[in-house]
Amino acid sequence: MKIEHVNQIAAAVNAVKATSVKNFYFVACGGSMASLATGDYFLNREISIPSRVYTSNEFVHVNPNGLGEGSVVILRSHSGTTPETVEAARFAREKGAVTIAVSMEVESPLCKEAEYTVHYNYKDGSDVIDGETGVYYSLIFGILNAVAPNEKYERVIKQLNQLENLFETNKKNTYDQAFQFGSDYKRDKLIYTMGSGAYYHQAYSFTSCLLMEMLWIHSNAIHTGEYFHGPFEITDYDVPLLIIKGEGPTRSLDERAITFAQKFSKKVEVVDVAELDFTGIDEDLKEYFGPAVAGAVLRQYADGLAEHTGHPLSVRRYMWKMDY
Amino acid sequence: MKIEHVNQIAAAVNAVKATSVKNFYFVACGGSMASLATGDYFLNREISIPSRVYTSNEFVHVNPNGLGEGSVVILRSHSGTTPETVEAARFAREKGAVTIAVSMEVESPLCKEAEYTVHYNYKDGSDVIDGETGVYYSLIFGILNAVAPNEKYERVIKQLNQLENLFETNKKNTYDQAFQFGSDYKRDKLIYTMGSGAYYHQAYSFTSCLLMEMLWIHSNAIHTGEYFHGPFEITDYDVPLLIIKGEGPTRSLDERAITFAQKFSKKVEVVDVAELDFTGIDEDLKEYFGPAVAGAVLRQYADGLAEHTGHPLSVRRYMWKMDY
Repeated sequence: MKIEHVNQIAAAVNAVKATSVKNFYFVACGGSMASLATGDYFLNREISIPSRVYTSNEFVHVNPNGLGEGSVVILRSHSGTTPETVEAARFAREKGAVTIAVSMEVESPLCKEAEYTVHYNYKDGSDVIDGETGVYYSLIFGILNAVAPNEKYERVIKQLNQLENLFETNKKNTYDQAFQFGSDYKRDKLIYTMGSGAYYHQAYSFTSCLLMEMLWIHSNAIHTGEYFHGPFEITDYDVPLLIIKGEGPTRSLDERAITFAQKFSKKVEVVDVAELDFTGIDEDLKEYFGPAVAGAVLRQYADGLAEHTGHPLSVRRYMWKMDY
Repeated sequence: MKIEHVNQIAAAVNAVKATSVKNFYFVACGGSMASLATGDYFLNREISIPSRVYTSNEFVHVNPNGLGEGSVVILRSHSGTTPETVEAARFAREKGAVTIAVSMEVESPLCKEAEYTVHYNYKDGSDVIDGETGVYYSLIFGILNAVAPNEKYERVIKQLNQLENLFETNKKNTYDQAFQFGSDYKRDKLIYTMGSGAYYHQAYSFTSCLLMEMLWIHSNAIHTGEYFHGPFEITDYDVPLLIIKGEGPTRSLDERAITFAQKFSKKVEVVDVAELDFTGIDEDLKEYFGPAVAGAVLRQYADGLAEHTGHPLSVRRYMWKMDY
């Protein structure tokens, strides 16, 4: 990892360490919120300090009672310009919280508004360790290790060096399946996604950003535990469902949903995280790495749809084209 | 309120009062989870003790680190038989948490598994105060008043007696609009819902239980703050959006989404909570009553769709018909 990232992360982690933390808030919008939610998931599972995810504008308007001194607020915006998230940083800092901005743009309004900045490289040829996943995981597991020291977290941080290889290998191994998916589902105007645990946020991101935003395909990210409590009644032979079969404690929820869906729909696509390559990752750490690797793999499913529908992922009809 | 409900709620509230509460968990599935989430929303906004919502099976499998002595776990199942929620009650109680079951069936497995039971009447001609909304609100505002005494909460509890009238008047006032909606949207195979704050959970419930489960209409409950960060790109002249314009701190988020949606879709239906009748409710308490009243009003929109599609809300193809 580049020294500038190491130093930024160390400064943020030390600030958390120096704080008697009463709660964490993860605040962002859309895909950035979903990315942060992976951190919320691991914190909630591993330590007893409470955490909560907010979409930025709700955070500011609801004004949670727990926000104040002793709060650590982690905010994220790819460009660092998302107005709601910039405002959330200002709001949280004014309330006395430790604020940490995660962004690719160190000179952005968000990074100026927050007390600490954790910057990642984007599409500049850097290793994955210096990209959004490597940097964010280093921050989260650095924080975990600061508030509840555990050799496990140190191993996660060391093995993040494997991400570059893992992304490359797994993208190569799943390329054909992802592009076949694009061909098979190119005429579908609606595709549901499903997942659980930390993978739920991958499903949310795929639904909101890849399918709805970039491909204009209707969607809904359904939690596999919720599927049987309402949503499953829309299952039919021609209803497409893209289901993440996660690696971790909630895998059995995904398996149950897959078994049912495959019985009544002919259009079930399963991304099985346990079948991915985890070379260089200790067995007990797979649950941490799974969501990151799944994200890189899933992206290709969107690429496959873009290729076969002739609708590039870069096309928008509203975003970048008007004020709203 | 009937004395048996008063006593049950008092016992549960006293148990919370006698506990040094470190956190609250709201645990249920589907529509029951969405109902509980209203409580989570108010607790999070009003007090600094953390709370979190879980779908039951995820709760048990993730096994949050904060769960244990000092936790208060509120669980809900209409019939009291939802296996995942019964298991969650057993799991939480074994971990030393105070467990409170909310159900219409006092003799159910859930109520037997939990330490405390809060029972509500259902379709037996009882006043709304003895039904699910009156009883659950009494529990939540009783808990709030126990951990952070405030005359405001006492007024909420007193004014719950207005619910019966509020439900009746507002259902009558919105009946025509709701059935017109059913006529206008009867050929739509997909209808999005939107909301924010406590109303987001009403949108979720309408999407999962009314549209997807009961009417087999595709849907997704989009947070109005998230709409602009992905989902809004699917907006088009013929894409239906049912948007709750809430009464409370996040109303401006809903207004922004409505303004945009109305510009690009010809099928936007707005349920404006501020236009509903709140006779007998103090101005500063409207934010608490709004979600409850909105729920009763929204139900009629589903009735309208059922009437005009000829698809009764009671029809299922999987639920009650097979094991899954």
